[in-house]
Order: sequence, then structure tokens, then C-alpha cells
Amino acid sequence: MRKISFPRTIELVNGKVRLINQLKLPHKLEYIETQSYGRIIKAIKKMEVRGAPAIGIAGAFALVLAARQFQKGDLNETKEKLNQVAKEIMNTRPTAKNLHWAVERILGIIRRSEDEKSLVMEVEREAKKIALEDEESNMKIGFHGEKLIKDGDVILTICNAGSLATSRYGTALAPLYRAWEKGKEFEVVALETRPYLQGSRLTAFELKEAGIPVKIATDNSMGVLMEKEMINKVFVGADRITRNGYIANKIGTYPLALLAREHKVPFYVCAPTSTFDLGSTHEEIEIEQRPENEVLYIGGWRIAPEKVGAIYFAFDITPPRLITALITEKGIIWEISPKSLNKVAGKEGG
Amino acid sequence: MRKISFPRTIELVNGKVRLINQLKLPHKLEYIETQSYGRIIKAIKKMEVRGAPAIGIAGAFALVLAARQFQKGDLNETKEKLNQVAKEIMNTRPTAKNLHWAVERILGIIRRSEDEKSLVMEVEREAKKIALEDEESNMKIGFHGEKLIKDGDVILTICNAGSLATSRYGTALAPLYRAWEKGKEFEVVALETRPYLQGSRLTAFELKEAGIPVKIATDNSMGVLMEKEMINKVFVGADRITRNGYIANKIGTYPLALLAREHKVPFYVCAPTSTFDLGSTHEEIEIEQRPENEVLYIGGWRIAPEKVGAIYFAFDITPPRLITALITEKGIIWEISPKSLNKVAGKEGG
Repeated sequence: MRKISFPRTIELVNGKVRLINQLKLPHKLEYIETQSYGRIIKAIKKMEVRGAPAIGIAGAFALVLAARQFQKGDLNETKEKLNQVAKEIMNTRPTAKNLHWAVERILGIIRRSEDEKSLVMEVEREAKKIALEDEESNMKIGFHGEKLIKDGDVILTICNAGSLATSRYGTALAPLYRAWEKGKEFEVVALETRPYLQGSRLTAFELKEAGIPVKIATDNSMGVLMEKEMINKVFVGADRITRNGYIANKIGTYPLALLAREHKVPFYVCAPTSTFDLGSTHEEIEIEQRPENEVLYIGGWRIAPEKVGAIYFAFDITPPRLITALITEKGIIWEISPKSLNKVAGKEGG
Repeated sequence: MRKISFPRTIELVNGKVRLINQLKLPHKLEYIETQSYGRIIKAIKKMEVRGAPAIGIAGAFALVLAARQFQKGDLNETKEKLNQVAKEIMNTRPTAKNLHWAVERILGIIRRSEDEKSLVMEVEREAKKIALEDEESNMKIGFHGEKLIKDGDVILTICNAGSLATSRYGTALAPLYRAWEKGKEFEVVALETRPYLQGSRLTAFELKEAGIPVKIATDNSMGVLMEKEMINKVFVGADRITRNGYIANKIGTYPLALLAREHKVPFYVCAPTSTFDLGSTHEEIEIEQRPENEVLYIGGWRIAPEKVGAIYFAFDITPPRLITALITEKGIIWEISPKSLNKVAGKEGG
């Protein structure tokens, strides 16, 4: 059995949150350590931490820090302030479901709390539970998804849905890590994923650290890679999965799914059920628009003439008819429908 | 009538070739001036000059400089040397058809020449004719294609198939310039086109100079732009058009065509008939692979970990069933087939 180890993406130790500053990767593995919830909010906004599950955990940890800070003896006042902070956290990134899901879970604890001292303890316990459950979920996604990987596969992925996007193991990359541990031989092509370059900076970084062969390609290469039959499986993550089975994920996911169907290449979406948003359809998803300067500058260098602007939606939406299967911690869904999603969401983890 | 003026992409003046160094755009409009054919070959290889028609002209001009240099009194020796240089030129970029077409045209002149002094003159005359014909072709592509553009259109394009890619006006952008001159109001979204960023550096530059509203977007945004119905026409160029109507063009063109069909958005390919390669099918096209460092570094900054490589094909191939129409200097081809391509190729320019 091969062994893979990961640096911790985000953790809560001795009253401090410690997280990898992902803007510094792949060249520097640098950590942010803070007791300030405001610093965590800033880290989410600036994408120093990113990835749907990881920002969910970051949001929960921010509430732990806030609960400590506001603990002044008045339960109702503290609850009031924490509600404000929770709103602020949820407003940082509108598309990823896990962030809302995690913050709502902590808010539930806060609402039920009847004593201020235990509130802080309970919030911390719940936040750590969210992080631990994420790790377990990903491990299970890995167990289920690993069966789909064969020796000799060349797997294409976009963005980073790996250990850096989660508590550990990742979502889309979890099956790959598991397959690698079991001794399967395969290669990965990581689309660079403009503008933030999650693919070339983060996915390539963590796969290389794990010893899995990886190359990068520009996002617009997805067509020629399919035409040349260089890819035989696609694994991607998801930021939100709607009732009717549409997935919101990093821009580029949808054209990739369309190409995969055209070339009869299996297209697998890996996500924990905390990504499910069974109350809405794809038409209700708000697609985050981010600052145009994140597109206009690369490493400090302006790529367009002055006074030319950029359009930057961070996500696109892939319809279920283009998805071969959805891999969750509770099993693989081959036929995506409101019924099958509901059934899996309600199931015990397997 | 609005007036648009362009800086000259490439010209032959007083025995020197003068061309825009496109690696310096959009921030500096800097020219290379040379009497050395070797310098032109280097410019093509390094992509200081690029764009299928422009490198055709550059190749022809390189032969003019070589003819002058080798003119020593022995006709056969000069012809022999020029044949060597021609081979060297054609080996620089394998996919674009115009380069081979232009060099072959000059070689025809060289073969027929019976006197060394007139050889140099005739080669120069033919090279200038190629540049002039390209300008005229593009103007005609503009006249034909302009009719397809309506007030309020939002036009998506990839790479740079504009004035900078040609002698003047461009291919895909020629209809836009003509429509703009005629007073039509529309907007353009230029996909940035990694890794060389022809879209954000060159297309945005020349459209902005012309006064046409333009924004850039990352290549992986093509899906969300279609989903949000923000685009109602696509115009692209072509580097090679095969007998059976497949087009080789910048990577990203094929996924864009697939999306356009999915969303019922017209997809227009604009190219002069010098791009036609009626002797081969798409299976015979050699797709150029370029140095991986052109992907791995952006503005001097490495975007991936050390020891991670990159796959870089410069072109992909779009099948005719995804192309709404092909706009050439000799008219618009709505039904792409070997028969219709042959017919147009043989027709007088109209």
C-alpha cells in the first residue's frame, strides 16, 4: 500500500485557526495563523482559502473565533452578534453551498444554546465535527470512486477539488488518491483553470507531492485533448447540486462535460451531500461575479490594454444529462433525478 | 462613415521588412526592422509575428531578403539556396496553410526565373502582390460578412484574426470593422486565448484602437457566456480548411463551436481561400506542438510547480457540421462540402 500524506489545509489548534495561504502556492507553502474571525472572512474573500468544503470549514471556524471574542456575559447579545457575523460570512461567496450549510449548522447550535460558556464549547465542537465529517466523507468518496479507475487511465480534471479544497483527500481527487494508494497506475492532466490557476498551481502541486504523474494544459486545450483521444475519464468537483441534478462548478466544467459527452468519455462529479441544495433548481443559483482585475492581471502583469474590462463569472452550470455519475460519500448515483438525490441525501453514510 | 485606421502589421519598405513585434503588445507598439531573412524566420518561430495570413506574408518577404542576399551571379546556386531557405521557412509553423501557400507561390516564380537580376525583382513583386491580395481579400470578407451583423449584437471571438494577423483588416474581424464603419452598434467579447493571450493582448488592443466596445473573458468562460445568453454570434478565423470542410484554428475553437451549436448561436468562420487545403482531409493535418514553457510561464512567472510539465497543442479541429457558414473573399459558403469548397476556390474574387 502506497502512503500519501497531505499538509493540513485548515485546522483549529489552541484557539487559533491555521490555514494554508493558497495564493502563495505552488512556490511557497505558507500558513496564515489567526485568532481574528475578520481575518478568516478576508481569507475567504481574497481566496487565500477556497474550495467549497474548505470554505465551509473556514466559515465554521470563523464563528468559533467570533464566539470567543464576543463572550462577555450576555447570551442574547452574543447570539445577536454571531448572527451578524454569520450573515457576513455567508455573503463572502454566494455560489458554494457548503459554506451556507456549515454556517447554518453552527447557527442551529447557537440558537439552541442556553448558556454562554457552553455556547463557545458547543460551537467549537460542532465546527470541528464539520471538519472531521468532511474528511470522512471524502475518504468514502474515495472508496466509492476508486472502483471507476483502471490501470492506464488518463484522467482530466479542472480546478482543484483535492485536499487543498477540503479538510483532507479532496472530492474529485479522493478516488485518485485511493486508487494510487492501492497501487493503480494512471496519469492526470490538470486544466490550468484561469483566472486563479487552481489547476496548475494547486492540483498539480498536490498530485506531484503525492507522487501521481501530472501535466497541465490550458483550459482551451480541452477540445484537442478529447479529439486526440488522450483522455479517458473526467473527474470534477461541485460547488452546489440542485434538486433537479444540475451542478454549479468552476467555469469550464460545462464545456468540458459537453465535450466528454461528444467523445463518449465518462464524466464523474464528486461531492459530499453537504453540497446538495435540494430546495432550489439551477435557475435559482446565483453565479458569483468576481473583480475583473483578477482576470486582467496575472502575477502583477496586465494582460489587456488599459481601459479594457473583463467579464468574470466564477462558475458555470452543468445539466445532469451530461453527467455519467455523481459520487457522494453515501454511494454512487448513476441516474440523477430529484428522487435519487433525495434518497441518497437521507441515507446513512456508507 | 466612421473611419478606422490600423498600424501596418508587416511591410516591405526600402529593402527592409518592418513588422510589429506582437510579443510587446498591448503595452508597447514596437517594430522589428531587418534586412536579414534569418531574423524573419526567428520572428515567425518566436511568434513575434503570427496569424495565418501574416506569417504567409512574412515567409514571402523573408524570401525577398534571401534573394537579395544570395544574388552573386550564379542563377542555379541562388535558386538552390532559396529552395533551402524556403524549406526552413515552411518548417517553422506546420499547421497554418497560408505560409506554405505563399512560399510555394514564390518558389514558382523562382523556378520560372531565367535571369538572376530579374529573379530578385520578380520575387519582390510577387511577395508584395501576396500582401496586397491579402488586404483585398480581407476587405471582401468584410463586405460579405458585414451583412450578418446587426445592431445590438454581442459577438464572441477567440484568438486574434484581426488586422494584426493579416496584411490589414483581418479575417474574422473584417466584417466587424466594416459593420462599425457603416455605423452599426455592437459589442465584442474577446476570449483571452491562452497561452499566448492573442485575445486579451491583440484583439482587445486593435478593437479598442478602432473604437469598438470590447471586453475580455477567460477561455473557460465560453460555457457560462452561452448559458447566460450573453452572446448571439461567434466569428473566428482559420489556419487551414481541408477538402472535407474541417477547419484547424486556435485551440478553443472546437469547444466554442460545440457550445454554439448547443445554444443555437451562429458560428461563422472567416478565411481567405489561400487557407484552403483541398488536397487533404482533417486526418492529415499536423497539429503544431509548441514549447511547454510557453504554457508554464506567464510574464516571467511560473504558474505550476517545478518539474511539472505541460501539454501544448496550438490548434484544434472543428468539423463542418458545427460551422454555420464559411466567409471567404469570394462569397459566403452556407453548405460546406468538397463540392462547394472547390467551386468557391476556383471562382473569381467577388
